[in-house]
Amino acid sequence: MEKKVTIIGAGNGGFAAAADLTLGGYQVTLYHDEARKKTVEELMKTNTIELTGVKGKEKVKIYKVTTNMKDAMAESDIIMSTIPAYGQEYIANKMLPYLRKEHKIILTPGSTGGALVMAKIFYEKGKFDGVKIAEMHTLPYACRKTSPTGVKILLECKKLYFAAFPAKYNEEMYKIVKKMYPAVELIKDVLETSLNNGNPVSHPAPVVLNAGKIEYSKGEHYHYREGITPSVARVNQKIDLERQEICKLFGYKAIDIKDRLYLMGYAPKRETLYECYRDSEVFNPLKGPKDLNDRYLTEDTPYSLVALASIAHKLGIKTPVMDSVITLASALKDEEYWENGRTFNDLGFEGMDLEKIKDFLQNGYE
Amino acid sequence: MEKKVTIIGAGNGGFAAAADLTLGGYQVTLYHDEARKKTVEELMKTNTIELTGVKGKEKVKIYKVTTNMKDAMAESDIIMSTIPAYGQEYIANKMLPYLRKEHKIILTPGSTGGALVMAKIFYEKGKFDGVKIAEMHTLPYACRKTSPTGVKILLECKKLYFAAFPAKYNEEMYKIVKKMYPAVELIKDVLETSLNNGNPVSHPAPVVLNAGKIEYSKGEHYHYREGITPSVARVNQKIDLERQEICKLFGYKAIDIKDRLYLMGYAPKRETLYECYRDSEVFNPLKGPKDLNDRYLTEDTPYSLVALASIAHKLGIKTPVMDSVITLASALKDEEYWENGRTFNDLGFEGMDLEKIKDFLQNGYE
Repeated sequence: MEKKVTIIGAGNGGFAAAADLTLGGYQVTLYHDEARKKTVEELMKTNTIELTGVKGKEKVKIYKVTTNMKDAMAESDIIMSTIPAYGQEYIANKMLPYLRKEHKIILTPGSTGGALVMAKIFYEKGKFDGVKIAEMHTLPYACRKTSPTGVKILLECKKLYFAAFPAKYNEEMYKIVKKMYPAVELIKDVLETSLNNGNPVSHPAPVVLNAGKIEYSKGEHYHYREGITPSVARVNQKIDLERQEICKLFGYKAIDIKDRLYLMGYAPKRETLYECYRDSEVFNPLKGPKDLNDRYLTEDTPYSLVALASIAHKLGIKTPVMDSVITLASALKDEEYWENGRTFNDLGFEGMDLEKIKDFLQNGYE
Repeated sequence: MEKKVTIIGAGNGGFAAAADLTLGGYQVTLYHDEARKKTVEELMKTNTIELTGVKGKEKVKIYKVTTNMKDAMAESDIIMSTIPAYGQEYIANKMLPYLRKEHKIILTPGSTGGALVMAKIFYEKGKFDGVKIAEMHTLPYACRKTSPTGVKILLECKKLYFAAFPAKYNEEMYKIVKKMYPAVELIKDVLETSLNNGNPVSHPAPVVLNAGKIEYSKGEHYHYREGITPSVARVNQKIDLERQEICKLFGYKAIDIKDRLYLMGYAPKRETLYECYRDSEVFNPLKGPKDLNDRYLTEDTPYSLVALASIAHKLGIKTPVMDSVITLASALKDEEYWENGRTFNDLGFEGMDLEKIKDFLQNGYE
């Protein structure tokens, strides 16, 4: 079953992965939720994705497109989820009835704690026996759908941090994923991948700091080119420094966001984060949110920034700039992100101190 | 000496007051700091201000324009300061050598704690004997200079909350000021006037929430019309609710900002704060800051928002939205507004609990 992959989620990332992995010799089953079947209706007629961008211009016929989770889970042992953080819990529960101990679930990306959240659900429902979960720190591509059957890959990331939960399965999972994505680099555990998610640094603060413009202009706004000015980039950099403090506490490498963006291929090497964004050919054409109901705010704030701040607070690290972005995002949206976001306890860390968490990440439940 | 007034500060407010009070039969001396003499050089040639706007179109010849503080303090017993918060300490120290016990100092506006800050300086330097200080919650006019000798009064405020420090001189000071400004309404004390300063509610949050746009567009931005969208106004309203909690603790009227804007004549009566701003003829034409070095951020954050938050924290009230705006403003500007802003101790409250503060506001030092 090693050359068979089921991709969960037919968004930008799912389309890109389905086409790319098919070209890489994999039998790809692409699953999308029945409730949003419209997304794949057109594709289901021909199973053919029109690929453009850096991986070439090609019509790629994939093996199967389905909205049936039972089929999707039966077709492959490797289950690769490209869905956003807010869908992870929902999808984990959908997978539950069809989980087999052979299943290897890979979240691309984990989006700050995704593997831990899924593992918690599987464990609590008594279905975690033998199932292995891993995550990457980011989606392997910068990509955008171009039509109901087309996708453009703007960038294939040159660095994909990867780890399994529990980390004792790191090597086993790494061998499988390395064949699919040679850019993967094995790191300590799934908290380290989560702490290298760049979205909570690059997305919410610039949206908050341009909230009036976004709402007034109805999205006539370039997130990076216009939104991240020197002062705004300074806020992002301070958020990244707070994130790095958490990395240091756990003994992970505290890779500055500037360096990671360079290693991934997103931005050139520059002195300041402002210059990195400014001179990035990938970021430059990206428009900002059309309104404040955008994933840059509504996913990356409660699911990622809250998770980082929640871990930090529990372990005695102060994150005033993250906290302020969360509080203002909540006020702008009239939401209670601090209460409803992904917290320390949601990751399975309830009652644990630093050493307990480290042990848990290595060895898992029990 | 009751018909003689010295106005300190030849900015928008100083020009408006000088012209208006001269028309009201006062002998007006207008003082401006020698170090920024350029501001009044042109005016000094003729002593004549070209007034336009709601108070009529008229050339108003004022009694004197000077950059000599000794002269300025000698000419009148009533000293009316229109200078911004960040100049209050500097000016208080400049006044010191020429203070007489007959002097009645009126800050228009107090800008959150101005009377208390000045009183503390006078007291500590042994010059507070007999000197009385009072403040209004706002400048009596919405106005803008139109040239080095011209000013336009857009609005004469219909409500001016007023009190003296210590409040035992309230009636005495009120009698004097009522003649100058019939719109004054006497309230409890100078903390109540400070808590009714609208700038910390209306200015910093929208600047922070449009920071990227302001910096990117170099100020091509209307603060109210474009910057205060429904979501941004929601943040302002939440800040106002935090401010109202402090008012309640002290037993002051917690006047909602919507109502105060209506009472002052700034905005029509509306259901939501967004609609108040949107439908205000005074606010609508006002452009936003040219950059992030603007008083809307650099005065109203450290001098006013920090003062409110600092009082709240010391007395056990939580102000998460104010705090977040202060922290993000600090991060944007790379400043330490929490440390360098106007705090509880700067107001003379050091070591006091709620009851002590109330007594101090009523009776003053010793």
